[in-house]
Amino acid sequence: MNNVIVNEVGMRDGLQSIRSIMSTSAKLKWIDSAYEAGVRHMEVASFVPPKLLPQMADAAEVVEHALTLPDLTVTVLAPNLRGAHDALASGAHRIIVPVSVSSAHSLSNVRCTPERMVEAFSEMCEARKQVSQPVKMIAGMSTAFGCTIQGRVPLEELIRLTTLVLEAGCDIVSLADTTGYATPKQVEQTLTAVRRVAGDKLQSVHFHNTRGLALANTIVATQNGIREHDASLGGIGGCPFAPGVSGNAVTEDLVFMLEGMGLHTGINIERLLACREIVKSSLPDEQMYGHLAIAGLPNHCPTYV
Amino acid sequence: MNNVIVNEVGMRDGLQSIRSIMSTSAKLKWIDSAYEAGVRHMEVASFVPPKLLPQMADAAEVVEHALTLPDLTVTVLAPNLRGAHDALASGAHRIIVPVSVSSAHSLSNVRCTPERMVEAFSEMCEARKQVSQPVKMIAGMSTAFGCTIQGRVPLEELIRLTTLVLEAGCDIVSLADTTGYATPKQVEQTLTAVRRVAGDKLQSVHFHNTRGLALANTIVATQNGIREHDASLGGIGGCPFAPGVSGNAVTEDLVFMLEGMGLHTGINIERLLACREIVKSSLPDEQMYGHLAIAGLPNHCPTYV
Repeated sequence: MNNVIVNEVGMRDGLQSIRSIMSTSAKLKWIDSAYEAGVRHMEVASFVPPKLLPQMADAAEVVEHALTLPDLTVTVLAPNLRGAHDALASGAHRIIVPVSVSSAHSLSNVRCTPERMVEAFSEMCEARKQVSQPVKMIAGMSTAFGCTIQGRVPLEELIRLTTLVLEAGCDIVSLADTTGYATPKQVEQTLTAVRRVAGDKLQSVHFHNTRGLALANTIVATQNGIREHDASLGGIGGCPFAPGVSGNAVTEDLVFMLEGMGLHTGINIERLLACREIVKSSLPDEQMYGHLAIAGLPNHCPTYV
Repeated sequence: MNNVIVNEVGMRDGLQSIRSIMSTSAKLKWIDSAYEAGVRHMEVASFVPPKLLPQMADAAEVVEHALTLPDLTVTVLAPNLRGAHDALASGAHRIIVPVSVSSAHSLSNVRCTPERMVEAFSEMCEARKQVSQPVKMIAGMSTAFGCTIQGRVPLEELIRLTTLVLEAGCDIVSLADTTGYATPKQVEQTLTAVRRVAGDKLQSVHFHNTRGLALANTIVATQNGIREHDASLGGIGGCPFAPGVSGNAVTEDLVFMLEGMGLHTGINIERLLACREIVKSSLPDEQMYGHLAIAGLPNHCPTYV
């Protein structure tokens, strides 16, 4: 009951947001060392044209390797039907499709309206029926808490689009604070409202730390029944349409906090910090964030951890 | 009921922890611009020998100025009876006395045992009776959540010392995470236990952001009845005995979060960010922390703020 999932999204969200292109072997090392630390959920790649995102050109190879690790839940992103076909062929367990609630963000990010994205999501859910293995479809509701381009994103719009993706066959609803606008009360109100239409399918949150509230918002999300949290090692990544962004929730700080809430992530923090060093050495030009890696763990292991 | 106090401690905790010595006029500008932003609680100085802390040599002058601002609650720190006499003479409304729960930290920080500090606190409470104006005595229970030197700090020890300071005449109990060790569940358990002996006198917390959890712990503290939060503009300051420290809770990020919890701080964030710029220009060699000053406020004002 106290178990909680930390989904490492650095290999996808992190790597596709930075300039450096990580070699395939470095990606596999990252996956292996995160696995070694106890991470059992990873979003490892994005199926997008290599011309647009050369960082993700080796997606199929990365997934193939990740699938060799026992009990690892492998998620990939697909922004359209073409990507979903590749994702299904890769054998990944879960496909996340970004559905921007803000029209302005949707047009900037995937060059189509939210309505068209819901149609595409529906087509992907149909395509999923053609493969033999079970695949879970995740709707990643982007800009769910506000948009840097459009401004306020009405909660009614989030509810409307969530209802549509659920009708289309969505298994898991994930709410993303793409712009780092979310505040604690908003998180509570939004989760309560989405819960009414999505029930237990509302499982996951994706918080950015742009305004320093990723962990604070995670506390509130946990208190409102969320058991899966996206995070990126060293906080790398973040949305290119959100100026001043300082990245995703930081995996190692998040794990420290969740364990310090009496929850169990299954992750060994010292090994995770070792994994961070490995990743850091393969991304010498990129900034990494987070406090725990600088300050280190407390010099005692309190009874509650 | 939804009002909450943010106590700016940067002029004391911040300035005494850094190398730069801020001029008196710059301190007064800081106080004025924080007041202008709506801050109504400030810890403005420390009454300590100027030889030890030259940063605080102008304490009496700073307090004198702060007392001219209507409705501003002025707090000062005094580590011993001599300092308390000066603090009482200054006319400050509240005196905070650090009482380290960890013996090792107490010996390093104030060169006496916790028991001796409680005796000194008792003597200060007696001295307070000699002045005509009402003065509140705050016991700042340092290392309440763990110590970098001693390691684990038993909760029983915190309860024992809190009971003693209450018997000595303490008006307000403040729990300080001097080392940035506190985690959410520990905050909840500690507040619950201290509440049993201190009742409504347990009013305040002082969190460090060393491991990134200051705001997350604040959420839990708020949910457990705390209505006064110490913070430092730009997060400057922190305990010199806590290696790797990245400072106090950041005032501007804290205010953003508290307002985003539906609480009222009475502080205008934009003016607070302007105050930060003023302080930053007078401390060119010091690092300032925090997210909001980099990312800026969201481009819409959500209805819940």
